[in-house]
Amino acid sequence: MTNDEQAIRDLVATWMKASASGDLAKLLELMSDDVVFLTLGREPFGRKEFEAGFQSMQGQVSLKGTSAVQEVHVNGDMAYCRTKLTITMTSSTTGESKERSGHTLSVLRKNSSGNWVIERDANLVM
Amino acid sequence: MTNDEQAIRDLVATWMKASASGDLAKLLELMSDDVVFLTLGREPFGRKEFEAGFQSMQGQVSLKGTSAVQEVHVNGDMAYCRTKLTITMTSSTTGESKERSGHTLSVLRKNSSGNWVIERDANLVM
Repeated sequence: MTNDEQAIRDLVATWMKASASGDLAKLLELMSDDVVFLTLGREPFGRKEFEAGFQSMQGQVSLKGTSAVQEVHVNGDMAYCRTKLTITMTSSTTGESKERSGHTLSVLRKNSSGNWVIERDANLVM
Repeated sequence: MTNDEQAIRDLVATWMKASASGDLAKLLELMSDDVVFLTLGREPFGRKEFEAGFQSMQGQVSLKGTSAVQEVHVNGDMAYCRTKLTITMTSSTTGESKERSGHTLSVLRKNSSGNWVIERDANLVM
């Protein structure tokens, strides 16, 4: 495994950890300024909308999950990565849990500091 | 617009035309041998499953649609492309039509013949 592939696998693991702990600052470090997220039943959105959505969930819902990396392909300073994601969302008020799963396809870019960041992300979790 | 970007936009248009006319041979030319399709409610699948699925629809359903390219980014012999897809499926037996729309994110590769092909495709049409 190349250093780039390892760095991207580490990014996926860090993303899941930061999501679970509510570490928005860390998540924002892991995406490009012009990131676009594609999710179900919603128009594509960027960094600002991600931030607002994440903040509105804090204290309402806790997230726990696993992200199994299926493949990583690197081509210079562009790469893509496919994962199978399983997420458990637990309501902080009722304690009720829901499990959801699905696949993701992400395009990543090595930025000028040499760090990989998510540039486009399609999330098919239903 | 670069030649590569134009070639990828042409590929998207050709894909839609070949889908509508049932031209499976043309569609197969536009994807890599190791292509992976991500769609809703189904495990990721490859070329063989695409072929079987497409053939099973012939004579049952006709497809018409538009694919509006939102962006194309090329990096050497890898690229990605985002579209907004609107599809009308019409039953050949009942004549009943359904319209579906959604976004796509595709990763493309320039093959050894210098042609761009789809390598990974995430389709969020519901």
